[in-house]
Amino acid sequence: MNQAKNVASTTDSDIVVMKFGGSSVADNNKLKNVASRVIDHYDAGKKVVVVVSAQGDTTDDLLEKAAQVNPNPSKREMDVLLSTGEQISMSLLAMTLENMGKNAVSITGWQAGIKTEDKYSNARIISIDVSRIMQELNNNKIVIVAGFQGINSIGDITTLGRGGSDTTAVALACELKAEFCEIYTDVDGVYTTDPRIVPNAKKLTDISYDEMLELASLGANVLHNRSVELAMKYNLPIKVLSSFERISGTIVKEMNQVEKLVVRGVARDNNTSRISVIGVPDEPGEAFQIFDTLAKANINVDLIIQSVGQNHSKNVSFTVAKSDRAEAIKLLEPMVEKLGALKVNYNDDVSKVSIVGAGMVANCGVAAAAFKALSDASINIKMIATSEIKISVLVDEKDGEGAVKALHNAFIEE
Amino acid sequence: MNQAKNVASTTDSDIVVMKFGGSSVADNNKLKNVASRVIDHYDAGKKVVVVVSAQGDTTDDLLEKAAQVNPNPSKREMDVLLSTGEQISMSLLAMTLENMGKNAVSITGWQAGIKTEDKYSNARIISIDVSRIMQELNNNKIVIVAGFQGINSIGDITTLGRGGSDTTAVALACELKAEFCEIYTDVDGVYTTDPRIVPNAKKLTDISYDEMLELASLGANVLHNRSVELAMKYNLPIKVLSSFERISGTIVKEMNQVEKLVVRGVARDNNTSRISVIGVPDEPGEAFQIFDTLAKANINVDLIIQSVGQNHSKNVSFTVAKSDRAEAIKLLEPMVEKLGALKVNYNDDVSKVSIVGAGMVANCGVAAAAFKALSDASINIKMIATSEIKISVLVDEKDGEGAVKALHNAFIEE
Repeated sequence: MNQAKNVASTTDSDIVVMKFGGSSVADNNKLKNVASRVIDHYDAGKKVVVVVSAQGDTTDDLLEKAAQVNPNPSKREMDVLLSTGEQISMSLLAMTLENMGKNAVSITGWQAGIKTEDKYSNARIISIDVSRIMQELNNNKIVIVAGFQGINSIGDITTLGRGGSDTTAVALACELKAEFCEIYTDVDGVYTTDPRIVPNAKKLTDISYDEMLELASLGANVLHNRSVELAMKYNLPIKVLSSFERISGTIVKEMNQVEKLVVRGVARDNNTSRISVIGVPDEPGEAFQIFDTLAKANINVDLIIQSVGQNHSKNVSFTVAKSDRAEAIKLLEPMVEKLGALKVNYNDDVSKVSIVGAGMVANCGVAAAAFKALSDASINIKMIATSEIKISVLVDEKDGEGAVKALHNAFIEE
Repeated sequence: MNQAKNVASTTDSDIVVMKFGGSSVADNNKLKNVASRVIDHYDAGKKVVVVVSAQGDTTDDLLEKAAQVNPNPSKREMDVLLSTGEQISMSLLAMTLENMGKNAVSITGWQAGIKTEDKYSNARIISIDVSRIMQELNNNKIVIVAGFQGINSIGDITTLGRGGSDTTAVALACELKAEFCEIYTDVDGVYTTDPRIVPNAKKLTDISYDEMLELASLGANVLHNRSVELAMKYNLPIKVLSSFERISGTIVKEMNQVEKLVVRGVARDNNTSRISVIGVPDEPGEAFQIFDTLAKANINVDLIIQSVGQNHSKNVSFTVAKSDRAEAIKLLEPMVEKLGALKVNYNDDVSKVSIVGAGMVANCGVAAAAFKALSDASINIKMIATSEIKISVLVDEKDGEGAVKALHNAFIEE
């Protein structure tokens, strides 16, 4: 997206962008349901842009086809292959709308002017030329755009990686100065925590961009961070809605919450491993060498603690994504001797549990209340990290659900 | 294609174009077989461009998906949908080649610079900008191009209609000044007649463009006329080959055959109906009204005979494609009274059987020999038409096979 463009207010726009995921367009009846949602906005006088993912299992089917001919295909050709999924679903949705008497036109990522970086499988959007979309909207067409895909500087098809269709929808909404962007999913909004763990988790009416970013990065799977960051930059409201039930969802938007402390959500992330380097000499630069090595291997480190060990040594512990743990250990083990440390160990059976809420920083009682709630539930805290709007604790994986329940009960239910 | 460009000789080129139809790329083993054919040319130092159709049943599956959401979808959206078929097969072939250690790159119709008319489902190619293909070839890549598709002046995806992938391959070969174009199919060449009717039909080593055009329009399904016309214009040799057997096929090329008469093939077309307008007054302009009406409805008329009827009237008979017969009758029945004619009737149970060969016009004995052969086989001829290189007769459909056998025996086997 263009760096300089920061739209203060977009609410005078009559354009709306609606995004439907793969499960929402999986079959004919679901396509009809999506079409009727689209027609509601269209008949209410909106200019409607719809972003679709590939139907249900299409992407898995295409991955399987690729795996059969090549166990390690190039990312370029995978993008060529996978991008057909959205092209199929977008044309079927256009035909469904035509059959319901509406003028619709489906366009691919390259036709929609979505320019990306020169990399495959996980490209970022650089710019969008919306002239074709505007032309179709001005001809009263419903415009359906393939999510998840764009075109790079040499004219190759690229895909946008995880959360790619959300990114397409939000980026288009920003560039079109849309009134809002609706993200339709198989949940009906953003909850204070996972309703499968805490049955009386509450759906949030609204949530700030910052809070949504923390919740997303802490394991809530509703929206990808790239979309939320983009929406925040352009001050675009995102509505998270159910594809299947016509009920109000959650609006992610700019919020002014200085007046009071509110814990907005409790999130759990089981995709984390704890690594400890034991007996590191207590000298300057030792920790730097550890984290520098990991950074160079693109391994992201989350929580970090240092604790004092025996004989003027210390233990350095940190968390990484589970998928990075094996590589991190492989890099660190040969360093033990050089560092003068004793050994490296790890634990995959941990959960990171976090509470999120703007204004938390202003209230020093929150951390104490959180630790008391966990202590009352006999849950042992292994590591702690805090930021302006969150407190995260690492606990044994078996304690993860209990920690979520205790914190949700202490901060949201009471 | 550019009008003015007529390449006299292209045999100094090291570029070859290979086209594989849907049955040739239907599954992994077939893709491997295609890849090994491609590698043969590549390893022999050729610059190889491969054109592929959609895999096996893909197009039927996509048509079925469309029919489920809309019984009458727009041609624009059908083109969006159907064009994914070739995009899938081309990327899978590229991955197959990668897995066999070769550098390959797959590109869609729009990436290959294939510009078409502004119509959908049956667009003609207007021009091809081969710069992307040349760039990839010069980087020693095997270039795989989606057949059957292009892009129109507003940037929409279009498809080329029947025989579209052949057209893509031949048009690319012409524009690239290729040494030759290979069309791989499930037959192994062009035969003197349908081997299912005449078991000792012979495979032709070579055939002229004119003869191939006549055979194609007379029911031989090997090559579409658009491809042959284009190849003739650019003097591009087309090789018709089997995808599955490594045996020599048939070369379609410019041939000098003034020296002797050769009947090259016998073709049968069952997709024809005979229509007769009975008792048309024998006055100028009557026949014109009949054929003008049909021409305005885009109904192509093939064989025509007028015969003298009773009371200074005549009967006007002609053939049309079976698919046009119902509409033709619907147009002609209301005209009977205005024409002062008696009635209209038709017969769907007819076959058009033709012999084709350059030089036929120079030998007036051919027609006589053909009629004798059919007479000896007790086959009644209902209509006759001749051109410079063909003689066609209309017979009862039950006599079609017998006519093919008799003519093949008289002109080719003996």
